[in-house]
Amino acid sequence: MISLDFTKTTDGLLPAIVQDYQTNEVLMLAYINKLAWEKTLETGKAHFWSRSRNKLWLKGETSGHVQNIQQILVDCDDDTVVYKVEQLGGAACHTGHRSCFYRLRDGEELVTLEEKVFDPAVVYGKK
Amino acid sequence: MISLDFTKTTDGLLPAIVQDYQTNEVLMLAYINKLAWEKTLETGKAHFWSRSRNKLWLKGETSGHVQNIQQILVDCDDDTVVYKVEQLGGAACHTGHRSCFYRLRDGEELVTLEEKVFDPAVVYGKK
Repeated sequence: MISLDFTKTTDGLLPAIVQDYQTNEVLMLAYINKLAWEKTLETGKAHFWSRSRNKLWLKGETSGHVQNIQQILVDCDDDTVVYKVEQLGGAACHTGHRSCFYRLRDGEELVTLEEKVFDPAVVYGKK
Repeated sequence: MISLDFTKTTDGLLPAIVQDYQTNEVLMLAYINKLAWEKTLETGKAHFWSRSRNKLWLKGETSGHVQNIQQILVDCDDDTVVYKVEQLGGAACHTGHRSCFYRLRDGEELVTLEEKVFDPAVVYGKK
């Protein structure tokens, strides 16, 4: 098992950047602890640690929008990783956008770059 | 000034992903606080908060390898940004590699993907 430096942060969480393996578009960033890292390596599906729910999170467990790992890159000081993935369902963001980074800075404003791929009310249920 | 949610973490730091604006290669990840974010917007050059030195960090202040901001993307919940940059000097990593993510997971090992662009002993001085 490739070891990362989980002692770098007081909460034991490291950032994982998720990138589309074909276009290199950054789809999202989430956090991993040792358990999420091990589950990702074992299963080939992106796992994270949910900071809001404080539990292991298989990306796509609710939506079905699983991220199949194609490559993993590790940074120079072992405290950040890049997951290059095949994004099932065409979108990574819970808002329905392909990427969580769907807003571009334009002076003092943020402009939305792209339309939604899915309707979150349908995928996650109305709240 | 576009406001980010710096209350998301106890230390007030948010991750900033740095991506080559032409190839979309992820070059590095570093952290920003409110001051680093404001300096980046004001100057058009990537600024971070150095966790090891606990001070404002203009990327390239020692090496000259400044990152000129071309675009800034903000994520869905205002706690992560992408800086799309022109990387001066051809390399972002202090090791001399173009990207900090120069190692690819291959089973139980990490393999180095690319040669160094510069010799860190020359750029930073021997230590």
